[in-house]
Amino acid sequence: MLAYKNDKFIPLELCTLSVYDLGVLMGAGVTDLVRTFNGIPWMLGEHIDRLLRSCKYACIPPGKTKPEVKDIVDGLIKENYTDKDLAIVFYVTAGENKVYAGSAGISGDREPTFIVHTFPLQTKLLWKRYFTEGIHLITPHIRHIPPNMFDSRIKHRNRLHMWMAEQQLQVPGAVALYLDEHGYVTETGGANVAAYMYNTIVFSLTNRLSGIGLGTLLEAAKKKKIDFSHIYLSLYDLLNADEVWLTTTPYCLAPVCWINGQDIGNGQPGPVWRKLLDTISDMVGKDVYREMTE
Amino acid sequence: MLAYKNDKFIPLELCTLSVYDLGVLMGAGVTDLVRTFNGIPWMLGEHIDRLLRSCKYACIPPGKTKPEVKDIVDGLIKENYTDKDLAIVFYVTAGENKVYAGSAGISGDREPTFIVHTFPLQTKLLWKRYFTEGIHLITPHIRHIPPNMFDSRIKHRNRLHMWMAEQQLQVPGAVALYLDEHGYVTETGGANVAAYMYNTIVFSLTNRLSGIGLGTLLEAAKKKKIDFSHIYLSLYDLLNADEVWLTTTPYCLAPVCWINGQDIGNGQPGPVWRKLLDTISDMVGKDVYREMTE
Amino acid sequence: MLAYKNDKFIPLELCTLSVYDLGVLMGAGVTDLVRTFNGIPWMLGEHIDRLLRSCKYACIPPGKTKPEVKDIVDGLIKENYTDKDLAIVFYVTAGENKVYAGSAGISGDREPTFIVHTFPLQTKLLWKRYFTEGIHLITPHIRHIPPNMFDSRIKHRNRLHMWMAEQQLQVPGAVALYLDEHGYVTETGGANVAAYMYNTIVFSLTNRLSGIGLGTLLEAAKKKKIDFSHIYLSLYDLLNADEVWLTTTPYCLAPVCWINGQDIGNGQPGPVWRKLLDTISDMVGKDVYREMTE
Amino acid sequence: MLAYKNDKFIPLELCTLSVYDLGVLMGAGVTDLVRTFNGIPWMLGEHIDRLLRSCKYACIPPGKTKPEVKDIVDGLIKENYTDKDLAIVFYVTAGENKVYAGSAGISGDREPTFIVHTFPLQTKLLWKRYFTEGIHLITPHIRHIPPNMFDSRIKHRNRLHMWMAEQQLQVPGAVALYLDEHGYVTETGGANVAAYMYNTIVFSLTNRLSGIGLGTLLEAAKKKKIDFSHIYLSLYDLLNADEVWLTTTPYCLAPVCWINGQDIGNGQPGPVWRKLLDTISDMVGKDVYREMTE
Amino acid sequence: MLAYKNDKFIPLELCTLSVYDLGVLMGAGVTDLVRTFNGIPWMLGEHIDRLLRSCKYACIPPGKTKPEVKDIVDGLIKENYTDKDLAIVFYVTAGENKVYAGSAGISGDREPTFIVHTFPLQTKLLWKRYFTEGIHLITPHIRHIPPNMFDSRIKHRNRLHMWMAEQQLQVPGAVALYLDEHGYVTETGGANVAAYMYNTIVFSLTNRLSGIGLGTLLEAAKKKKIDFSHIYLSLYDLLNADEVWLTTTPYCLAPVCWINGQDIGNGQPGPVWRKLLDTISDMVGKDVYREMTE
Amino acid sequence: MLAYKNDKFIPLELCTLSVYDLGVLMGAGVTDLVRTFNGIPWMLGEHIDRLLRSCKYACIPPGKTKPEVKDIVDGLIKENYTDKDLAIVFYVTAGENKVYAGSAGISGDREPTFIVHTFPLQTKLLWKRYFTEGIHLITPHIRHIPPNMFDSRIKHRNRLHMWMAEQQLQVPGAVALYLDEHGYVTETGGANVAAYMYNTIVFSLTNRLSGIGLGTLLEAAKKKKIDFSHIYLSLYDLLNADEVWLTTTPYCLAPVCWINGQDIGNGQPGPVWRKLLDTISDMVGKDVYREMTE
Repeated sequence: MLAYKNDKFIPLELCTLSVYDLGVLMGAGVTDLVRTFNGIPWMLGEHIDRLLRSCKYACIPPGKTKPEVKDIVDGLIKENYTDKDLAIVFYVTAGENKVYAGSAGISGDREPTFIVHTFPLQTKLLWKRYFTEGIHLITPHIRHIPPNMFDSRIKHRNRLHMWMAEQQLQVPGAVALYLDEHGYVTETGGANVAAYMYNTIVFSLTNRLSGIGLGTLLEAAKKKKIDFSHIYLSLYDLLNADEVWLTTTPYCLAPVCWINGQDIGNGQPGPVWRKLLDTISDMVGKDVYREMTE
Repeated sequence: MLAYKNDKFIPLELCTLSVYDLGVLMGAGVTDLVRTFNGIPWMLGEHIDRLLRSCKYACIPPGKTKPEVKDIVDGLIKENYTDKDLAIVFYVTAGENKVYAGSAGISGDREPTFIVHTFPLQTKLLWKRYFTEGIHLITPHIRHIPPNMFDSRIKHRNRLHMWMAEQQLQVPGAVALYLDEHGYVTETGGANVAAYMYNTIVFSLTNRLSGIGLGTLLEAAKKKKIDFSHIYLSLYDLLNADEVWLTTTPYCLAPVCWINGQDIGNGQPGPVWRKLLDTISDMVGKDVYREMTE
Repeated sequence: MLAYKNDKFIPLELCTLSVYDLGVLMGAGVTDLVRTFNGIPWMLGEHIDRLLRSCKYACIPPGKTKPEVKDIVDGLIKENYTDKDLAIVFYVTAGENKVYAGSAGISGDREPTFIVHTFPLQTKLLWKRYFTEGIHLITPHIRHIPPNMFDSRIKHRNRLHMWMAEQQLQVPGAVALYLDEHGYVTETGGANVAAYMYNTIVFSLTNRLSGIGLGTLLEAAKKKKIDFSHIYLSLYDLLNADEVWLTTTPYCLAPVCWINGQDIGNGQPGPVWRKLLDTISDMVGKDVYREMTE
Repeated sequence: MLAYKNDKFIPLELCTLSVYDLGVLMGAGVTDLVRTFNGIPWMLGEHIDRLLRSCKYACIPPGKTKPEVKDIVDGLIKENYTDKDLAIVFYVTAGENKVYAGSAGISGDREPTFIVHTFPLQTKLLWKRYFTEGIHLITPHIRHIPPNMFDSRIKHRNRLHMWMAEQQLQVPGAVALYLDEHGYVTETGGANVAAYMYNTIVFSLTNRLSGIGLGTLLEAAKKKKIDFSHIYLSLYDLLNADEVWLTTTPYCLAPVCWINGQDIGNGQPGPVWRKLLDTISDMVGKDVYREMTE
Repeated sequence: MLAYKNDKFIPLELCTLSVYDLGVLMGAGVTDLVRTFNGIPWMLGEHIDRLLRSCKYACIPPGKTKPEVKDIVDGLIKENYTDKDLAIVFYVTAGENKVYAGSAGISGDREPTFIVHTFPLQTKLLWKRYFTEGIHLITPHIRHIPPNMFDSRIKHRNRLHMWMAEQQLQVPGAVALYLDEHGYVTETGGANVAAYMYNTIVFSLTNRLSGIGLGTLLEAAKKKKIDFSHIYLSLYDLLNADEVWLTTTPYCLAPVCWINGQDIGNGQPGPVWRKLLDTISDMVGKDVYREMTE
Repeated sequence: MLAYKNDKFIPLELCTLSVYDLGVLMGAGVTDLVRTFNGIPWMLGEHIDRLLRSCKYACIPPGKTKPEVKDIVDGLIKENYTDKDLAIVFYVTAGENKVYAGSAGISGDREPTFIVHTFPLQTKLLWKRYFTEGIHLITPHIRHIPPNMFDSRIKHRNRLHMWMAEQQLQVPGAVALYLDEHGYVTETGGANVAAYMYNTIVFSLTNRLSGIGLGTLLEAAKKKKIDFSHIYLSLYDLLNADEVWLTTTPYCLAPVCWINGQDIGNGQPGPVWRKLLDTISDMVGKDVYREMTE
């Protein structure tokens, strides 16, 4: 498999990070992830735009334009895609800290580290259970990053709080759903959460990634004449919803069947989820349910 | 130069991180830093203890005992120390994410990544100006990590907020001093802050690393019959102090002469700072002022 | 068994509450609990003082003096104590809402409802496992009552948040440890938490009951020359302590062996716990370990 | 008068709560209130739905279906309704704590306590003054329950903070209006608050009951071509509104004439209030103004 | 130049404040500012309404009706307007503290101090650089007034926090943009901030003045078929916008080209700004760009 | 009476402020107040030190040294003191805003405005009732300035929130006691609050002026062997204290007898208050009780 690092296509094994890279030293990096359907990247432009917005906000100039990034992705897919769809990961850091090099030194002249790499999506291994049985969400005691630190709309890797929360979940296979500092619902580590009730989809107004998977869901909802609105989302909304879902680029839309041990609806994947998943499948040109379960 | 990674001593250039390492993917790592004086590591036991406490709290079992870590440090110093004192960096991550490998996958069996590496302290290059002219502290708008996420007593690398703050300081060479969510003073990216007034040293009660450099300062203060206490530290205390200092293991104790553009005292390194620095020099067996300035 | 309600000793079965009692309608009640050792109430005066302070703060005049309350307790013990030690429960409400009677009506003339009742402590059934295996603490996502509502030093029964948290713990037999709105440790539903480290006992400075069991512990600690101090207590302190304990009047002092799935010390009840428990046993005149386990 | 408790219709006097009921011990209960107009319950389905949502969120399974609850209500009205309209109160608790039974014990097998009781609405006694003179709202220093504890959309009885606030109001007959932790307006103990200005009704976005009385108001507003929107409601909005009202099921809509000693508008019940009240009267089939004042 | 104070037109030099005025002693005053275009005050009615709302909320009865205030303004313009357009400043305080007179005394009978004064707008001196080069916004560490103190929709002069922030900006000529207690964007000391992106103008939902300049902008936007919405505004929105502007009555609309050292768009005043400024010029009957730059 | 303004002694009537003074325009001023006993200023040095610390923190250089300020005070006392003791008020602002002059302009070269003025203390008129009957404290809903804005240890005049709170107290003659953003007790508009219990004086740790009157109290307490400590002060402490007092320079120490309508102790001025007041009278050389009441 090929990867891309700082102007070169290289074998994936060589695509490593120096211990002096500021991405490692200070978490000074941003990231994004796009997937292919039948070898074609989904919403590639939108994902690159979001990456560049993350770069701007995080003070990490990427040193690449949108067309340049597109070319890199095309190059990698050409080389790496066989029959299994790919995840394509962008990772941009502030580069190497030449002097010092503890966590807070003088960094001198730097070039950003710009990495793109891919891997085949192990859809069944990772998500079959989500689609056939449903997801169990647990809200850990650890709160999400507050806007006083930075805006969660950027996609980054300062996720030690998530690591800690996930190690402490106490329910095998469960997914952590993070609350914000005030107690409202934000997002999981890899997905937005949405609730369906009274023919309306509601999702969180604040403190979450601007999910592109969520955008795809909303487009599917429009096709099915389902309304949506963003609100101050609370567990009250989720627990009393007819259905609750996770949305994300890699697996599109998955059903949540339990939250903190309580059933959502009748504790089974719901019919609206399945209808919207099928609509998304039409949009992306691949039967997502089948991809995840067979 | 040798480094240590996962049970082996290897050349520093080979001591890199996979893009699938959870330290890179999720910031799931802890760190610590110790320095030598004349080739002898200062407070090595205390630093290892702190590293192990960070591991415990962050749910990252290091897979090493305190004596094993000591042996690794001894091995590296033996090999790497010549005439310049060394910084010794510990970096322990949750290991490689074998499956998936976006930011929130199933990690399967993992071994922690345990890295120790060293570099010669470029004392003059980095800190001469601190010691001869004094430090300018700026309080950025970005707030420090709140205890609702995790306790800042662990030493970790989720510091994107610090990266962003430092890029925005607007004063060349200034050091960022972080406030907490309520507006109180916490710490800088690499040091604790202390204020001296009425023959007493005051420092922040909450939201900061348990600084070992601070411990050294307090021991020096005891020798000089100076009191100390931790308080809810505010800029009011710092701005009206006789002297303000940064304390940290690498450069021990440095004078702050300005905060947000205002003079501390007469805007020059103060006499109590110098007296305590000399006391510390006696304790560590090396003239620290000279090391930093000549 | 006799109970006491509004100036009369009555059979326990008749000691019920009207659905129009403001304790039921609005949670407008305060409570306290004292236990006997060999039929003698422990720290009775201190418990009554605390009850009266709760009444004052909560705007619920009890209509009883300290000596009158003591007489009631004496009367109940005389009648109800056989060979098993008793818990004695005080419950004082704002009385019955004569008019209206939804949750926010005009209450007219009211007499407080003053109830005292007892039950034999089922020590083995409830706490044997705590003493022989140790307690598992889990920190739920639900936060404790903040001082902006009222001070947690009163003992009251507005504990729906605790009920909800306990239903969601996901670990059978575990005890919920509540964090405050900022992420610091407060207390469990029935006990104070204390950590032992470096020959010092630390416990939470804020947002918790002024535990009388904690007072007993500190007196025992003095006898054994162990220091103590109250701090902003965090999970970092607990996880890295040598031992962690719960203190409360009914079972005095019990060992915590796990927090959120991680071992405290070696994951077993510790020697300092046992030493202090024996000291307390001497103080109260009963072998508490035996009472709990045999 | 009959009441209903745990599968039986019983005389109201026998409808009491054990001191071991978790509703009493821990406030582990939810509630709701519906009223009749001419003996017919208003929006009964909506109120039962809200009760069941409260049960779900509060982890208190009611053990009853919506049709079963309807039947109970019908049974009680049949028996208890004469010429005065009734309030019908639902109160569901987690049941009796069989073992222990202090505030935090092991509860063992439990059946929920499900109570329904009624009382004739003393409309004149309670609310005549509201309708003829207007209400004086006072904002106490005590803040409302924050979402970090639980969502105020459930109707429950953990209202000790309200009890305390009401005892301290210092203005006879005034009604407490609670602010949230940030200083925004939430609700009173028994009603939602709405402001009218520029032909628009505004009410609080967060931290309040999903008022069914508010729903009735909004329906009446639609009929009169008045807009409405929910906002971050502040005292600035209320003080500068043309009119301010309280909405609640029992008295429908009442005028607020003063807040913290200041006049709203000209300090008299306003014309839009009266117009909407008459519209509501048409909707419910009873002259509400007359019911409250004659 | 004439000014107006407490029922009299007086020379500006005599329009001073006693050191016992509560506006001086306690900041107990509200203010507003309107400007003329070609001698005609812009949106005078709206500004007086806002002043009166500020008075009501701040408990400072102005002792004047809207028509009376209009007459005062007309009188001053007649006297003071020559060829340069005027700013007209309203300042209403709680009056003089007759007894005591430290900051918290008994004030006895008081008359409000009602001042109106004018000055010629020094447009070029103050704002030419804004229009030709663009504004640099800096977000200081000091947070804006929270709603727990009072609502920022009133225009008042308790701005010591702004004074302090502005003294500490470290960038000559930069303008401070204040964040709220949670980290969201509010306003500058004299203007609202708006961002333009995807043909939509977004601005802050909370914690800011109800800007009349903003109202003018939105009316201009309607004419140009540009949408707008208020949101929880963050630096992420501003940094990634196509254009960012300040809106305020005196200079209408000015372009922001840098925030915290980073370029907005290409770091130059944008075309949509210029288009909307010209639209506003048509609305107010004066070429604002020319007024500011020539 | 003479006053002092910007290097000149002038008649008090001429000591006024321009409407363009930044103290008026932006609240950009700091203040302090000292009183005389028998014509001798009490703790003059401490008060000037505090004034200068306020200046430093608030970025308002006073342009005067401590000896210069002392000389001004001496000059005024000489001229103004007859038989009634004086209050001496310092008020330092950032000076006049020469250009613009709305609230946020360019200020150009400025000289600080430095005012000192005096008035005879109307002790009986203002405080007799405090000493003979006791003070009623009310905690308003409005919260005190949070440290996120600035530190309340400076004495300033941004007190619009206090003005508003005092207008809304609803209890004639009562004094407002401000809570902080979290619900803890801070201070009143003119005094620190202290509680006495178990032979210990407790007072608030945070968010309050560093009261010099409090310093005097603590010195008196030492003489009487009474302990003291600062804590997170809550209404629970005050309501359950034996005595509660206000301390401030002008009236030294006054008894609080009610808080929010509830008695403190027996609702009468207490004996420890009187004992300490007499001790203070000895220290200051004047019978303060007599001064206030006769």
